[in-house]
Amino acid sequence: MVEKVINYLHENREKHLEKLNDFLSIPSVSTDSIHNNDVEQAAKFVADYLNELGFSSVEVMQTKKHPLVYGEWMEAGENAPTVLLYGHYDVQPADPYELWDSEPFKPEVRNGRLYARGSSDDKGQVFMHLAVFEAYIKTTGTLPLNVKVCIEGEEEIGSENLYEILEKQKEKFDADFAVISDSGMVDSGQPTILYGLKGFTGLEFTVKGPSRDLHSGIYGGAVRNPAMAMAHILSTLKNMDEVVTVDGFYDGVEELTSDERELIKNVPGEDFVNSTGIPETTPEQGYTAKEHTMARPTLEINGLYSGYQGEGTKTIIPSSATAKLTCRLVPGQNPTRIQELLVEHLEKNVPAGVTIDIKREPLSAKAYKVDPNHPLITKAAKSYSEAFGKETVYVRMGGSIPVVELIETIYNIPIVLLGFGTPDDRLHSPNESFPLESFDKGMETLVYYWNEVRSK
Amino acid sequence: MVEKVINYLHENREKHLEKLNDFLSIPSVSTDSIHNNDVEQAAKFVADYLNELGFSSVEVMQTKKHPLVYGEWMEAGENAPTVLLYGHYDVQPADPYELWDSEPFKPEVRNGRLYARGSSDDKGQVFMHLAVFEAYIKTTGTLPLNVKVCIEGEEEIGSENLYEILEKQKEKFDADFAVISDSGMVDSGQPTILYGLKGFTGLEFTVKGPSRDLHSGIYGGAVRNPAMAMAHILSTLKNMDEVVTVDGFYDGVEELTSDERELIKNVPGEDFVNSTGIPETTPEQGYTAKEHTMARPTLEINGLYSGYQGEGTKTIIPSSATAKLTCRLVPGQNPTRIQELLVEHLEKNVPAGVTIDIKREPLSAKAYKVDPNHPLITKAAKSYSEAFGKETVYVRMGGSIPVVELIETIYNIPIVLLGFGTPDDRLHSPNESFPLESFDKGMETLVYYWNEVRSK
Repeated sequence: MVEKVINYLHENREKHLEKLNDFLSIPSVSTDSIHNNDVEQAAKFVADYLNELGFSSVEVMQTKKHPLVYGEWMEAGENAPTVLLYGHYDVQPADPYELWDSEPFKPEVRNGRLYARGSSDDKGQVFMHLAVFEAYIKTTGTLPLNVKVCIEGEEEIGSENLYEILEKQKEKFDADFAVISDSGMVDSGQPTILYGLKGFTGLEFTVKGPSRDLHSGIYGGAVRNPAMAMAHILSTLKNMDEVVTVDGFYDGVEELTSDERELIKNVPGEDFVNSTGIPETTPEQGYTAKEHTMARPTLEINGLYSGYQGEGTKTIIPSSATAKLTCRLVPGQNPTRIQELLVEHLEKNVPAGVTIDIKREPLSAKAYKVDPNHPLITKAAKSYSEAFGKETVYVRMGGSIPVVELIETIYNIPIVLLGFGTPDDRLHSPNESFPLESFDKGMETLVYYWNEVRSK
Repeated sequence: MVEKVINYLHENREKHLEKLNDFLSIPSVSTDSIHNNDVEQAAKFVADYLNELGFSSVEVMQTKKHPLVYGEWMEAGENAPTVLLYGHYDVQPADPYELWDSEPFKPEVRNGRLYARGSSDDKGQVFMHLAVFEAYIKTTGTLPLNVKVCIEGEEEIGSENLYEILEKQKEKFDADFAVISDSGMVDSGQPTILYGLKGFTGLEFTVKGPSRDLHSGIYGGAVRNPAMAMAHILSTLKNMDEVVTVDGFYDGVEELTSDERELIKNVPGEDFVNSTGIPETTPEQGYTAKEHTMARPTLEINGLYSGYQGEGTKTIIPSSATAKLTCRLVPGQNPTRIQELLVEHLEKNVPAGVTIDIKREPLSAKAYKVDPNHPLITKAAKSYSEAFGKETVYVRMGGSIPVVELIETIYNIPIVLLGFGTPDDRLHSPNESFPLESFDKGMETLVYYWNEVRSK
């Protein structure tokens, strides 16, 4: 049966690529109201496709900003599980236009890659799902499982209205598990299970000293230098072994199992020294760089400023110093709690002669992780390997995908990240592209996967 | 005899103020070539005055830029000492003009102060010397001691050509001691002996990590954060007790004697908390804020920057972090040696995973100090007290006056700083002014002083 479906995809490849081009040609830039009509058109494209396929309850749901497209296929019966498929049809702005080698909204194939804004993030991957549904329905008359499709138009502007819709219409979107194809593989052609993402919290703080910059000759020796106080405070946050020294920071963090260390070891990792130009990697004591980036929490200074920044010398004691901090968190760490620990730590470490002013970053995210041995995950790995002809690797990533936390918070269901992008896709940058190999083998992966998970 | 001289000054006060106004009306801004002719005029004013008084060898010495005015009075005889009087007739630019309440080059008296660019720094003080010479010569026929006058036109642009002239014509300018009136008193009407200035050295350094800003989620845990490395490095320079922790930094620094501590205690000091808005002063452990600012070396961060400085959050690992450092030094510390100690210290404290790039500040200055019990100093204190009717205080200052170091280096003679400015004079700023009280009592101080030091 699966062969028929895959054959259909092969036979209709040109037609599908043409149809994808139509989708990519719509400049559905969500952040710019000049494109509001284009955003509508892209939503309509998705809804039309679902209608064509015979999905029911197809709806372009209006929100306070851009619509969300819903549609369902519930004909697989009660014994089949129901999947919630999430994706987004909006894209990042394309500027600076002059850095594109071809028009961002006139898709063009070069060297086995399809160049267009949205080709990888996320219209290309959304389209692959729709084409696979088409292949199943045209060849078998139905889908192997029940499907609820949720394709939003506000991902690139923070999914402003998604939470409210999913929360308010919980039953409508409820499912046994969720699948999101809005991520990538560690390397081109390398099937990858992304089974964990880091959480996030942050804050900004200012060390305040004198009410104005002071002459260092006249006041040096009487006044605490806020930049030096800042250095002392920052140096209490992390030691030279890259261990965070904030009380309670690691509370609740699961130790890495030897199984997971093995999984991480098998990931064909980036050569960090080579790709970033640093003299050597400096991971947390007791961990490899891959382990730390994927599976251990981090605390980073993102910005720092104080006093005179121009050329040459200005002999002042600056009136203040500011630092921006963010943490990437792992399961077991609550972002709000970590932010509070940071605040407490900073307040405790303010030296005499200066004061501190802390701005908590309002955005945060919990870390996400599924058991890599969960059947929904092992089946995904099997499907990937079958399609790409290569062993699947398991990775956790330092990044955050807010919608993952959102779905987990509301539904508490397993989330499977089936991503087909590659590190060369240039998401959000000029010359975004998507490898045709990912297009073809990714769709095969989906065909295998839906077949694998057809029964509860 | 002294009374006659002082009487002459009283009787000729209006005439002198008018003549000073002529001097202040010349916009002798040395930094702007549009004023080259004005600078020449101001030099000529000084030379003409000296000629009028009967000084010999009066000369407008051409340099590579602005002329230096020389003149001498050697008729006091071999038993009288010779003083080198230094001052400058050039001024800072007056802009922003719109912030002046009266024209910067149209002197105006308001509330007992003479408002004009250069009224305090330094034309006003130069003029006072010339008027005192006039008073002595007109009433006694000579001066109490031999005088070599050296009034330059490049002080506000770094005294570029002064060193070469003094060095090459060493004998011409040689004297038993030097007097400079280009500084101030700690408070209006408070006679002040400035017997020490701090030296200066500095450097800028950059901690370099990855070749570009990196995504903190993907690279956090593999890559040393240069801003955090910077914080760790900076925190090794000074401890929380404001003690510099660079090896050898205090080598050769004289301990404060109880006599000096007493002198410092008697200075009516600025209330640092009140004037700067800090919660409390934080001097070096074991010293008061006045002691540290006046007589102990300091190390300050003047500027600091790394990564993202805009609003909100940007989750990057910055590629580099830069800090600007300067030190104020005391006698016994060699600026070049201290700079070298800093460089060694920084290089020793670079953590793995980053590199460091150090730019040495080329400008430096040695600290200056005369023995407060030197007869030339105690006589100055006595003269001040007599004129102002108030006990003289002894201060050392955190600032540097480059010409002091220059004269000391070439001639190795005592230098007496007889300054009559006040903290409210707004040097280099709009509305520069000079109190008429300083004009009157300062000239009386000079009359007393020349009389006091008339014999070797």
